[in-house]
Amino acid sequence: MTLAFILMVSCNNSSLNKNIQSNEALVDYTKFVDPMIGTAKMGHTYPGATVPFGSVQLSPDTDTVPFAVNGRYNPDVYKYCAGYQYEDSTIVGFSHTHFSGTGHSDLGDFLIMPTTGALKLNPGTATNPDSGYRSRFSHKNEHASPGYYSVLLEDYEIKAEMTASTRVGMHQYTFENNEKAHVIMDLMSGIYNYDDKNVWTFVRVENDTLVTGYRQTNGWARTRRVYFAMAFSKPITNYGRARYDRPPYNGFWGRFNQAENFPEVAGEKIKMYFDFDMGKQEKLQLKIALSPVSSNGALANMKKEIPDWDFEKVKDDAKSSWNKELNKIELKSEDKEEKINFYTAMYHAFLGPTVYMDTDHNYTGLDMNTHNADNFTNYTSFSLWDTYRALHPLFNIIQPKRNSDMISSMIAHQDQSVHGMLPIWSHYANENWCMIGYHSVSVIADAIVKGNTDFDAEKALEACVQTAKTRYYDGLGYYMDMGYVPEDKSSSSVSKTLEYAYDDWAIAQAAKKLGKEDIYIEFMERSKNYKNVFDLKSGFMRPKLSDGSFKQDFDALNTHGQGFIEGNSWNYSLYVPHDPENMITMMGGGERFITHLDSLFTMDLPDKYFENTEDITREGIIGNYVHGNEPSHHVAYLYNWTDSPWKSQDKIRMILDSKYRTGAEGLSGNDDFGQMSAWYIFSTLGFYPVAPGSINYALGSPSIKNAVINLKNGASFEIIAKNQSAENVYVEKVELNGKTLRTPFISHKSIMSGGNLTFYMSSEPNPTLYESE
Amino acid sequence: MTLAFILMVSCNNSSLNKNIQSNEALVDYTKFVDPMIGTAKMGHTYPGATVPFGSVQLSPDTDTVPFAVNGRYNPDVYKYCAGYQYEDSTIVGFSHTHFSGTGHSDLGDFLIMPTTGALKLNPGTATNPDSGYRSRFSHKNEHASPGYYSVLLEDYEIKAEMTASTRVGMHQYTFENNEKAHVIMDLMSGIYNYDDKNVWTFVRVENDTLVTGYRQTNGWARTRRVYFAMAFSKPITNYGRARYDRPPYNGFWGRFNQAENFPEVAGEKIKMYFDFDMGKQEKLQLKIALSPVSSNGALANMKKEIPDWDFEKVKDDAKSSWNKELNKIELKSEDKEEKINFYTAMYHAFLGPTVYMDTDHNYTGLDMNTHNADNFTNYTSFSLWDTYRALHPLFNIIQPKRNSDMISSMIAHQDQSVHGMLPIWSHYANENWCMIGYHSVSVIADAIVKGNTDFDAEKALEACVQTAKTRYYDGLGYYMDMGYVPEDKSSSSVSKTLEYAYDDWAIAQAAKKLGKEDIYIEFMERSKNYKNVFDLKSGFMRPKLSDGSFKQDFDALNTHGQGFIEGNSWNYSLYVPHDPENMITMMGGGERFITHLDSLFTMDLPDKYFENTEDITREGIIGNYVHGNEPSHHVAYLYNWTDSPWKSQDKIRMILDSKYRTGAEGLSGNDDFGQMSAWYIFSTLGFYPVAPGSINYALGSPSIKNAVINLKNGASFEIIAKNQSAENVYVEKVELNGKTLRTPFISHKSIMSGGNLTFYMSSEPNPTLYESE
Repeated sequence: MTLAFILMVSCNNSSLNKNIQSNEALVDYTKFVDPMIGTAKMGHTYPGATVPFGSVQLSPDTDTVPFAVNGRYNPDVYKYCAGYQYEDSTIVGFSHTHFSGTGHSDLGDFLIMPTTGALKLNPGTATNPDSGYRSRFSHKNEHASPGYYSVLLEDYEIKAEMTASTRVGMHQYTFENNEKAHVIMDLMSGIYNYDDKNVWTFVRVENDTLVTGYRQTNGWARTRRVYFAMAFSKPITNYGRARYDRPPYNGFWGRFNQAENFPEVAGEKIKMYFDFDMGKQEKLQLKIALSPVSSNGALANMKKEIPDWDFEKVKDDAKSSWNKELNKIELKSEDKEEKINFYTAMYHAFLGPTVYMDTDHNYTGLDMNTHNADNFTNYTSFSLWDTYRALHPLFNIIQPKRNSDMISSMIAHQDQSVHGMLPIWSHYANENWCMIGYHSVSVIADAIVKGNTDFDAEKALEACVQTAKTRYYDGLGYYMDMGYVPEDKSSSSVSKTLEYAYDDWAIAQAAKKLGKEDIYIEFMERSKNYKNVFDLKSGFMRPKLSDGSFKQDFDALNTHGQGFIEGNSWNYSLYVPHDPENMITMMGGGERFITHLDSLFTMDLPDKYFENTEDITREGIIGNYVHGNEPSHHVAYLYNWTDSPWKSQDKIRMILDSKYRTGAEGLSGNDDFGQMSAWYIFSTLGFYPVAPGSINYALGSPSIKNAVINLKNGASFEIIAKNQSAENVYVEKVELNGKTLRTPFISHKSIMSGGNLTFYMSSEPNPTLYESE
Repeated sequence: MTLAFILMVSCNNSSLNKNIQSNEALVDYTKFVDPMIGTAKMGHTYPGATVPFGSVQLSPDTDTVPFAVNGRYNPDVYKYCAGYQYEDSTIVGFSHTHFSGTGHSDLGDFLIMPTTGALKLNPGTATNPDSGYRSRFSHKNEHASPGYYSVLLEDYEIKAEMTASTRVGMHQYTFENNEKAHVIMDLMSGIYNYDDKNVWTFVRVENDTLVTGYRQTNGWARTRRVYFAMAFSKPITNYGRARYDRPPYNGFWGRFNQAENFPEVAGEKIKMYFDFDMGKQEKLQLKIALSPVSSNGALANMKKEIPDWDFEKVKDDAKSSWNKELNKIELKSEDKEEKINFYTAMYHAFLGPTVYMDTDHNYTGLDMNTHNADNFTNYTSFSLWDTYRALHPLFNIIQPKRNSDMISSMIAHQDQSVHGMLPIWSHYANENWCMIGYHSVSVIADAIVKGNTDFDAEKALEACVQTAKTRYYDGLGYYMDMGYVPEDKSSSSVSKTLEYAYDDWAIAQAAKKLGKEDIYIEFMERSKNYKNVFDLKSGFMRPKLSDGSFKQDFDALNTHGQGFIEGNSWNYSLYVPHDPENMITMMGGGERFITHLDSLFTMDLPDKYFENTEDITREGIIGNYVHGNEPSHHVAYLYNWTDSPWKSQDKIRMILDSKYRTGAEGLSGNDDFGQMSAWYIFSTLGFYPVAPGSINYALGSPSIKNAVINLKNGASFEIIAKNQSAENVYVEKVELNGKTLRTPFISHKSIMSGGNLTFYMSSEPNPTLYESE
């Protein structure tokens, strides 16, 4: 755990550091975090209260649209991946679990809404809020900061405030008027709510201030149970339930009134209400603890994390826990907008993966048995197709212990998986198989080669190898036999082939580091498979059929039906992060490659290529370069492998400038559980992990003037960009600890050893920047 | 646990006993047990393999009719409370959980059916067995004995054999032919199968011989999960699943063939099949272990109880465990039919409540948390409205440790219950609220007054008091306030009032024994409430309304709508077991009472009173006396409180003779988890607990000549009926340890101290039998 470790703050004008052990010494960076960034359009972030990597994300849901209408996918659901859309003017309630920035979704557990007046158990509609329990609200009466969210529920004149600890959400409702209040607990509400996402709900009113239970859902996670314990600060006067499922056989139950004040409720579709007599401006507080194991586990979590009713203390603790994490990089800047962008990116980067275990380290595994995370913190919600690229590499620098524990969590996953596979996209002890590749191996390899191995590295490598040999997984058997995935056997075949090849290279790097020569050789061989889908004739990666011929009617710009996923061939053809030199050669050499790359950023992509594409929109692109989605995140750095690294520099600055903004609409695409933000953090600091699994980072163009990375071992690494300005995007010279760099790369070790990296910026490219003297 | 304790076998012609510690010394009484008794019509017993009080009841299901057809209750389901009907000629499969003798049902988990030929995943119909996987069978190829069941599945030429340990069922299938075989695991099959009884199923094919998973159902038990681990004796060659629920969102799953050889399956409605290559006359064995906690728990149970593949050993062990229990009463008789009736009754008496915990004592409680039964064996399936009458009193004599543990289980239930109530009718950590009263208190009080208190007696009494003060329970608030349940407020009001009054008396007796004078006084006062529903004018117990007036249009013979449940006023008016003297006075005194009682057995009850009554049929009655259901089980003994005890004697012998027979149709009504059988055992031995909670038993007329009860402490109690014959049903004289009894009662202590009770039988009544000299 990181809460207790000693934080290092570098002094302003020296490379000396002093130990600062008290929280007061931390700079309050939370004031620069704006959780509203990304809450509009496609950022898919949520504004609610949470702590770093917290299990509870207590946040307002502005609508809960059905996943399907008349049995067909409802595209409107996409807007509500995080439950909140900035443009909305009503709030349905506050639920306790949310993904940050994902492009598919689930969760939204235990929606709570305080109301007054007539009891309404349905949310009503946005166009007619009075038809249900939802309330109008206004952004002017809304405040969001790390660990705290408040809003005025106008229809009821209730001020709603939220804060959280790792496993407990705390609500505080101040009622303007002296009246009878209801607290609705809508157990049918959920994000990406399939008709029958609810499998079962179970509720017990243990006494007049305590309610426990669980909900099982069949959503994106197929078999998912979340247990809760909910405590009220004052006694319930009356309560009841409504059920919307087929009533059960009632032969023996008809003798009870089970709808009101009957303390045991269970069924598929249940809503509860709890009534309270509230005085004028009286506060009602709630604590809702979650557990992946049991309601007893939830109760123990509550007792341990928030034993009292001191809302301000919980809020202060949440803020402190954020400052501890945000201080890991100290950005020295007078530019408030820059600080807002930077610390909001830091905030978003620390929203996941999330802690997934009780305070006693028990959690439910993939086999639905209770497991204990022995000597590590178990995490869940691995959006790996996104986060392997920059987020986990970032963690190797500023969250090494957490990253190691995340890998221990992955190994436990593999151990429990009946497939014997590492996570693909996993949440709450379920594999949802989202996207492609097996990028856990990249995360593991990156940590191994960088020496951040507070996990069983040998076992981790075995898990990688077994994962990479699961023949029935997604065309992998064909890939193993034929050297590529044939498009006629498994769609998105080129993307799969390219990503498998990269992953295989990553496995080889880990094997080499661990001295497993045979595995190294085997997987280095496999890593060359990207060559098998390169079509020399067209100059693009192109889908190949099982007869060995390339697919006809090929459109390198189309994202659909062309052998790629969430990207077109123009972008995806550049996806050989582990072997750019050969890729460039294959594509015709440096000049031709530069032309290809240039055109990516400058070409005019016709509108038709955006139709029916959720993840790629005008906001997220530059020319045909798609920053709003992940496959091209390394692309701007590829000029470093040509004679024109300066072309990387202006592209990176252009992306930083145009795709990351303050305000609700600030993000140009899904934040994808911090991957977009991690790209920002790295690029802002001037370097980027083009191929995780390599010990080197490619240099870019820092957008900040000065920043200090505080490292776990007490050292710090300072980045200085001299003569920095919006115009001076080109690097004239770079010095590592005073020594001029002759290649556009720095090693992980050079960062972790502490020191400084000084960029000298200019408005003109330096064409000989990295040439040896 | 009782398996290890020293069993006592009395010698034939002396009252001396010798310790016999080896199993070989036990008499083999299993050969007299016919599990087929009660499998026809309404006995509702099952013929399959189980051990005493075992968690697993592995038994053939001959049909699985739906609980409801077109949304309406399907009366045909009643026949299949135990899954098997003797008249049927096809078997659907073998499932692992069955209630014995109940009048409502649930369970039927994990139906297994071996087949050959074309794969069929639906059971098909009885009229067209070839339409599904079911098979024809014949009773001539069927064998059932304690712990073992076999049958020839004619359609497939498979000999199916079953045996069991406490938590594991073992199957052995011998295939006549050399062919490809299927083992169907129908996870949708179940007893009392509501349309949507299945809430969720989860299956993992761990490797080619091991499958794990669970099923959650919403049936009679509302929230019930049973976990399993299934091992095969030879490898699966191929497997798959069919699903009958709405397929889930398939966006990311469509890349897999999840229907075949995909090791992870989950959904609401699932069927699995496993294929094997079988040689001619080759055997395939299966072990299926159950757990209330987890699949890991099930696997541990399997490893502990049946680690090997030795079917004969498991079968022999099961037989031994039965003999250990059956030897607790040694019936000396040359009459094979008598022995069959007796030992089958003993067998049925030991089928429940059933063990409900893993071998490590973990189990899931009512709050759905995992609990540990510390120092006791946790039991479930408490059919208390039935079993408090004679089964639990019988256990106080021959299963004292188990009865104490059952009470510990009830206390744990009360502790976990959000209602703070002891079980009413509880199974698998669910209260199903079946029937009326709170008869746990009778079981507890009976054990306390009899000194069988290997449980926390003080806590048990507190639990009784709290249960009896749960105002919202079934008219209880009215009863507490008004002294009776008003029929206009809560139906079956007279039955409730009478049973609450008896239960209150039982609480008082326990309180007295424990020195809680205030509770004694309070509940003795409540126990008189039976008087408030006696209508002097009609001479019957009669429903009273909340205005204090009796219900008009009263029909003392009608079972429906008259203020009673499963009985009419004529029978129920005799339900004051705790105060017969006053009841007789109230009903007009001895002569008038005897006339009433006589008429009960002799009157001609018109057919119309049987219509729409599942529990009361011609087979179960004598005149208007209903033996096939419980409310009158004490009635034949009531003459003991008049000057004509001999009238009890001939009634009891008439009931024993006519209502308990060999053969599948041998039972005259639901065995009700052993209550009918316990009545038989007591009455056959010549005494009966008219009012559990009293230390005395009423004497009747033994139907045996000689029997020895082997007691826990090493003593034995012998019953001798001299001059016994079918005609000599009257008792001329009774001697306890040689001393003539002057009242028709013997105390519990006199039995438990060891000794003998000698009846001298005659063909003529002795009108002065119990008069003092």
